Amino acid sequence: MKIALDAMGGDSAPESPIAGAVRAAREFEDVGIVLVGLKDVIEEKLSGYPSRPPNISIAHASETIGMDESPANAVRKKRDSSINVGLDLLKQGEVQAFISAGNTGAAVAASTLKVGLLPGVERPGIAIQLPGVKGDTTLIDVGANINPKPMHLLQYALMGDAYCRYVLGRANPKVGLLNVGEEEGKGTEFIKETYDLLQTGKFNFIGNVEGHDIFSGEVDVIVCDGFAGNVALKTAESLAHAISTLLKRALSKSVITRIGAFLAHDAFAQLRAEIDYAERGGAPLLGINGISIIAHGASTGKAIKNAIRVARESVRSELNRHLVEAVAAYEQQTKPAQP
Amino acid sequence: MKIALDAMGGDSAPESPIAGAVRAAREFEDVGIVLVGLKDVIEEKLSGYPSRPPNISIAHASETIGMDESPANAVRKKRDSSINVGLDLLKQGEVQAFISAGNTGAAVAASTLKVGLLPGVERPGIAIQLPGVKGDTTLIDVGANINPKPMHLLQYALMGDAYCRYVLGRANPKVGLLNVGEEEGKGTEFIKETYDLLQTGKFNFIGNVEGHDIFSGEVDVIVCDGFAGNVALKTAESLAHAISTLLKRALSKSVITRIGAFLAHDAFAQLRAEIDYAERGGAPLLGINGISIIAHGASTGKAIKNAIRVARESVRSELNRHLVEAVAAYEQQTKPAQP
Repeated sequence: MKIALDAMGGDSAPESPIAGAVRAAREFEDVGIVLVGLKDVIEEKLSGYPSRPPNISIAHASETIGMDESPANAVRKKRDSSINVGLDLLKQGEVQAFISAGNTGAAVAASTLKVGLLPGVERPGIAIQLPGVKGDTTLIDVGANINPKPMHLLQYALMGDAYCRYVLGRANPKVGLLNVGEEEGKGTEFIKETYDLLQTGKFNFIGNVEGHDIFSGEVDVIVCDGFAGNVALKTAESLAHAISTLLKRALSKSVITRIGAFLAHDAFAQLRAEIDYAERGGAPLLGINGISIIAHGASTGKAIKNAIRVARESVRSELNRHLVEAVAAYEQQTKPAQP
Repeated sequence: MKIALDAMGGDSAPESPIAGAVRAAREFEDVGIVLVGLKDVIEEKLSGYPSRPPNISIAHASETIGMDESPANAVRKKRDSSINVGLDLLKQGEVQAFISAGNTGAAVAASTLKVGLLPGVERPGIAIQLPGVKGDTTLIDVGANINPKPMHLLQYALMGDAYCRYVLGRANPKVGLLNVGEEEGKGTEFIKETYDLLQTGKFNFIGNVEGHDIFSGEVDVIVCDGFAGNVALKTAESLAHAISTLLKRALSKSVITRIGAFLAHDAFAQLRAEIDYAERGGAPLLGINGISIIAHGASTGKAIKNAIRVARESVRSELNRHLVEAVAAYEQQTKPAQP
């Protein structure tokens, strides 16, 4: 199995992608990792490591798409960017998965344009795993599709259900629709239509859920439009950061609280690990005809290593075959009977 | 000044509203507090206090709207509910403000139907204050209007700006539009139209902001549609609860971490106070022709006391006069010149 990694994407590229690649190459010896980007820069960074794992190779790409560039333009104009070159490798079957911590919009646009969608899938959706009190919840979509149709959310539910079953290994995942209240009939016309459509799917649809349910861990899959999902995700990141900053400030106020913080260090470390996005690695862009993983822009080496783990598990579990089957089974089920 | 309080609304009603009313009555001796609800029940609860403040009175209402009832139906059918009776008092000028921690949808619907909107205002919006690293941010709307037009968000910006200036006492508040990216041109058609409209207002519009900015405290007012705002608010509550639960669990793991937690107690108390919604009390429903405050369903006595403080400050600062002036000034500014 070969996985291409955008070596130039992310806030701390190329250092973090390369660090993650080296860690993953050592942990997953059955995976060949192709670092995509400026060959000279990558070679130089790799030479800083005591030894270079034999399962790391380089694919040169002369351009880099910046984090703030307009996605559509960048993908069209920078044909030799690391995102485009990596996705070309995926399209040509040279690799089985592609990972980028770079410009999310560009990664989504290029994945869709170059590799295309799985048969039957109308739009891809970013499926992110979020920590919760009772376990993780997969939220889909968090920004690939900010103006979806109800059918897109139905397909996100079908794909999210299959992802939970076949990659995360959960039986009969609970699927909820993100709304402003739990009662049937709540929400906008779009939400009400989506609710009705979700009831026609052969998955365990538990109805409307609210923002309250995202971090409870009571629901396995929550589907939403990419605008609300993006807002929810970034709001959560913002609050986690604010709590951490305010707590550090409060803990440093007196000698007593500083001693307390020192003694409680293990507990803080445990909490950090439990809610750390880096443990979860990357968010698959479900619906793409090839495994494409969106990693967080702030990805550390550990996060990249885990994104490679997610890509590897997605390939090994034949995720896309299951997605195609789920979407096809729904089409079959709703097709009018032959006369 | 008189303020009516729904004694029957909220998860721990009537105890918490009554406890909050007693605290507020002692702290704000210039305010008369009218408890609205079942007279016998309120009398009985009040008799449990060592002394009854002279500035507390009761207005009987024979019905109660449940937290999960369909708002529109409940408001129409339960004419003698505490929400309806309290808002009748506001409409008749018997009180200058009304507060409910009950069914939010019912409080919004009844406020709009009974008291009506301020001249020029098209839709009311719930303006909630959220804590941040560098100070509070006011997010409007968090659920009154889930399918708004761009003009509604323009009016939220005008009203949020005036609220910040005249109630919170901030000079030149920064106003942002909640979006999925900061660059101009991001977002749905609705968002793009709203962005253009916001540029025409005479407030300090800083452009698009993201979920990241909600808890940074860098922006004074963030406007959004009520669906995204509601999702953001509930997601944040959910995460704060999850972090608190996971941290408690982690801190109780060993004797050392338990001692650490004991010593760090003051720091946790400070953090709790900083992010405590109860300190902020209630969220004004801006645009109503009278002060109507939405309190959190889980309001404690302290939260209710602070909601009464918010109502008192809104009345004293003549909030609604400022809102009307802000909306009228915009209308004037955009009116075509007379021939």
